[in-house]
Parts: sequence; C-alpha cells; structure tokens
Amino acid sequence: MQQGKQSICFKQAPQILEAASVVGEKEGQGPLGRFFDEIEKDPMFGTENWEAAESASQKRAAERVLEKAGLTRSQIRYLFAGDLLGQLIATSFGTVDLNIPVMGLYGACSTMGEAMGLAAAFIDSDNADHTLALASSHFASAEKQFRFPLEYGNQRPYSATWTVTGCGAVVLGKRGGVAAVTGMTPGKIVDMGYKDSMNMGAAMAPAAADTIWQHFQDFERRPEDYDQIITGDLGTIGAEILTDFMRNKGYDISDRHMDCGIEIFDSESQDTHAGGSGCGCSAVTFCAFVLPRIRSGQWQRVLFVPTGALLSSTSFNEGNSIPGIAHAVVVESVKAEEK
Amino acid sequence: MQQGKQSICFKQAPQILEAASVVGEKEGQGPLGRFFDEIEKDPMFGTENWEAAESASQKRAAERVLEKAGLTRSQIRYLFAGDLLGQLIATSFGTVDLNIPVMGLYGACSTMGEAMGLAAAFIDSDNADHTLALASSHFASAEKQFRFPLEYGNQRPYSATWTVTGCGAVVLGKRGGVAAVTGMTPGKIVDMGYKDSMNMGAAMAPAAADTIWQHFQDFERRPEDYDQIITGDLGTIGAEILTDFMRNKGYDISDRHMDCGIEIFDSESQDTHAGGSGCGCSAVTFCAFVLPRIRSGQWQRVLFVPTGALLSSTSFNEGNSIPGIAHAVVVESVKAEEK
Repeated sequence: MQQGKQSICFKQAPQILEAASVVGEKEGQGPLGRFFDEIEKDPMFGTENWEAAESASQKRAAERVLEKAGLTRSQIRYLFAGDLLGQLIATSFGTVDLNIPVMGLYGACSTMGEAMGLAAAFIDSDNADHTLALASSHFASAEKQFRFPLEYGNQRPYSATWTVTGCGAVVLGKRGGVAAVTGMTPGKIVDMGYKDSMNMGAAMAPAAADTIWQHFQDFERRPEDYDQIITGDLGTIGAEILTDFMRNKGYDISDRHMDCGIEIFDSESQDTHAGGSGCGCSAVTFCAFVLPRIRSGQWQRVLFVPTGALLSSTSFNEGNSIPGIAHAVVVESVKAEEK
Repeated sequence: MQQGKQSICFKQAPQILEAASVVGEKEGQGPLGRFFDEIEKDPMFGTENWEAAESASQKRAAERVLEKAGLTRSQIRYLFAGDLLGQLIATSFGTVDLNIPVMGLYGACSTMGEAMGLAAAFIDSDNADHTLALASSHFASAEKQFRFPLEYGNQRPYSATWTVTGCGAVVLGKRGGVAAVTGMTPGKIVDMGYKDSMNMGAAMAPAAADTIWQHFQDFERRPEDYDQIITGDLGTIGAEILTDFMRNKGYDISDRHMDCGIEIFDSESQDTHAGGSGCGCSAVTFCAFVLPRIRSGQWQRVLFVPTGALLSSTSFNEGNSIPGIAHAVVVESVKAEEK
C-alpha cells in the first residue's frame, strides 16, 4: 500500500523468519565477532580466487539461514540478491546451486535494503510464501574491482573504509517470525558532484539524509518513533555529515543513529580507518547484531537504511562524480499474539 | 497471486501505457529501423565517452516515454532499470536526473524482463500507480567492458552477436493502456558449464528453455496459447538450440518463436553474424516492434522472454563457465471494454 510520496506500508507486515551471517577472520576479530554464525579463517573460503571466495560466502549464508529456518531450497519461491562485482558474478556463481528463481539487484552497498524491501513486497502481495534476501562483499574482490591490486600495498587515507568480507541472508515469510518488515522507502539517486572515492561516506550521506527525511514525511514520524536509525556504511565521516544534514532539515537523530560500518570494526586496533563498507557490511551487521535486539524486544522499531556509492573504476577514471543511494526498510518486533 | 511453482498471475493485469525506443544508427538501418522513436546518428550521443552515451540513451528514452504517456516524472513512483556495465553506471548516470526512486537491476540481457515483471508487480499490489521500466546497452561500452578495445579491430566468429546500441522504456499503470502484463515467470540461473563467450546464444538457450517450460507448467498452457514466444538475444545458433530443447521437452515452438536478436539486424548486409544482443536488444524490439502488434490486436498474447548470459571479463578470464538466465512476462492485448 502506497504510503506518502515515495514509501510503502506493508499491509500484512511480512516477517523475517531467520537470518544468518558468514564473515571473514577480521570481522570475527571485531567488536561484533561473537554474534556471527560463521567465521571463516581462510580468506579464499577454500576456493581458487577472491570472486569464488565471495560466492562461497553467499552459498554458506544461504544454506545456514535455510537450516536455521527449517526450510528447504524448494520452499523459497524467489531470491533477491546482489553484490558489488561487475555483472554480479559473486551472486551468479554463489546462488546457482540454490536452484531458486533469482532477481539480480545492484544498489552498491545499499543492496541489502533493496533486497529486503523487494523480498517483503513479494510476501506482502501474496506472490510468495517464502523469499530469501542476501547481499555480500569481500575485501579482496572489492579492492581488485575498485582500487589497487593488494600486492601494490597502497596507502589508504583516514577517510577510506575497509570492505567487509561476508554475506548476510534473511528468509521472509508470512507468520511465525522473529521480526516484521512493516514498510520501505526506496531511495532516489542523489548526486552532489562529490568525487573522492577514498571518502565514500561523504558521497553517500546526502542520499541517506534524502531517504530518511522522505521516510519521516511519508510515515508522519519523527526520530523518536524509532529506537535506532541504522545506516549501512557511512563510517565516521559520513555519519557526522548525515547527522548534520538531518539537523539542518529539522531532525536530531544523533542520540539514536547507529552505522553498521562504525560498529563492525574497532578502527584503532584493526586499522580500518573510517569504518567498514561493502554490501556485506550492513547485511551481516543486521543479521548478527540488529535483528537479535529486535527479536528480544530490546528495540521495538528500527529504520534500517543501507547506503550505496554508485561508482565503477570506469566512471571514476573518466572523472565522474560518485552519486549515492539509500534504501530504507522498517523492521519491528513481533508482538507475541502475532507470532 | 502465485501461479504454479515459479510464476505469478497478476490479479489486476497492470497495463503498459506507452513505450519508447531510442537506438543508434546501425539499428536504424536494420529491418526494424522505421519503428523506432529516435535514431541517433552520433554513436557518442553528444557526450564524451561510450558510457555517457549509453546514459544519454536512457535519459532520452525515459523522457520520450513520459512525453508519449502524458505523464511527468513526479507521477512515476518507482523506476526499475539496469544495463550491462559494471556497477550499472549507465543507469546511475542515465537516471539520476529523473529524480525517481530507483531499483537497480542486473540480469544481463534478461534485464528488461526482470524490470517489466517487477514494475508490473508493484502496480498489481497497489504499491504504485505508475512505474517505469527500462534497460539499455551500447555496442562500444559493451565491447570495452567485455571484449577488446574497438581500436584493436579483433575478428569476430560467426557465432558472435553484435551488442545493440539503444534503450527501451515502458510506463506501466492500472488502466488506459495499450497492452496488459498478465503474468511473469522469474527465471533460475542455469549453468551447463558452457564457456565460449563468442557464442552466448548457446550459453543462454538452456535457461530460456527452462523458463519457458516452467511457464507452460505453471499456467497449464501450451505454445498454441501464444501468438508469439519472443526470446531476447539468442541469435541464430541459440534459437535453434532452444527449439531443439523445447522439442525434447515435448513442445514445438518453432512456428511461433521469434528472437529479438535475429529480427533487429540483417545479418548478411549488416555483418552482425549471429544477431543482436545486449539489454537494449530485447528492450527496443519489444517497444518498437512487439508492442504495436499487441496494441493493434494482430497478436492477442505473447510470451516475452529476455535472456541473459551471466559473465564478466573477470569470471571469463578465470576460466569460469557462462551461466544463463531468462525472465518471462506475459503481455496481452487489452479488450476495448477494459481500456
């Protein structure tokens, strides 16, 4: 059901049945380490190259979430999935064995928001009983795709983020879940002409502010209506810009804003500079850290807003700006009687 | 509404209000030349690089279809769009000025099927009054992305296809349209281990067969229930494999199968070998050639099945196979009383 100018209020409040997270060793050593379902010490995930490693993380997260939900692959009607690599090859090779019809998605690091929103929409409209949403990234496949060969050992400025190695996956259904997806606000592409690919938080913050502001208008809500407003991977610099932008728009979100990129690493001891990033960053943080707090009732309602920086090495080398995008979903606790 | 194992039957039969196609000079010189809305003789579309040229084709197709439908940008609730380039940069820069919330999609050359299906699903579920679906490709940006620099002048085998330069766009709404989208069958990724990137028709044909076969099961239909079964860009070799596969599965589609890649170029006089390809191939052929025949009542019902080859230069260079995917949508004529 249309809500305001840009949002959707789900009539049936589709539920998240289970979630699973598979991460690399560095993520396992971070502050959220004990919450992840699987920590893989081999950066190659037992494969022959970085891209295949990322595909392996998807496959394991998908298998793990199905196991946790007590469902078989054939019970999942549609898969909504994506990653950062050109032509989504991590997803193509990571999900082929699932044998589930798949909608390939690209929203850069906002992909988990797009995937969860679409997966919920298909449940809500009775077009599916169960859907699967997942997104992944891998530090080494992303460096190869977007930046320098690892062997080059380039210096990274303090504004740069560290791409998370990992995949987060959620299974959605109609009832019997641990949290409900009650709404979504798909985002617009926002281009402020920003060009520094080593400060993607600044490139994404205006898009996050645009989506969050529009969400508040559409649902006639304020920051106080949410226990947490959780962005994807703005990092320390982007997070500050977001709270400033929101303050200028009349909303103080500073006491309830959390950024997955800031939470996932300890920047001082882990040398990750401005924080974590990548599709996997918000996906695994949501699955391992956010969802359990909604499930337990510690948080009644959160706004989950993965954020993406829309660039490629081609567009960057051609001197283009880095537009941003952010897709928001509302996730709420399930009251006992609705379970 | 779920239909069979893998499909959706749209309860409200969302309608295509209008369509627009913008192509390059070579496409304009082909057999379908007179049907396109705009033929641009400058391969750069007035921009400075191939990627920006592709973005320009998206922008012009979007503007043209809105003009034809008599709608403004602000009346389009969501945009479903994609292209072939890494990180969808043709789409990011091509649609940013539209200022419409966008779901970035990647299904290789099957993207227009994914986009039209999702755009219809959001109308059908009352989550939008108007949606826009588009997909593009550009010969030169694709050669640069997937193959060799144009200056290299490499030889192309006869099994290779020629990437179409162009963008097709459709606007969907609830009523008052020229055709109805009555169902969709999202496809699975099918990997037969095929590795020849110069024969993508062969790589995609098994996926097309899988989706079409499943579609027949889900809707309990046979080839005779369709005036045309229209694949995306299998080309001459892929088309033959598809009809063989379908015959082996008990269905003869040979007298009503049409492939956009075969239709769009005259392979002899235009030196395009196995046919056209690219997201733009099925998108512009649908908009310019297929839809008018449904609108006029010449065809009552078609199955439109864009086909995608899931590879990147990285996965190809690493020796990986080329999985295929095909997303089907059912498009029917609108009876006078339903208009």
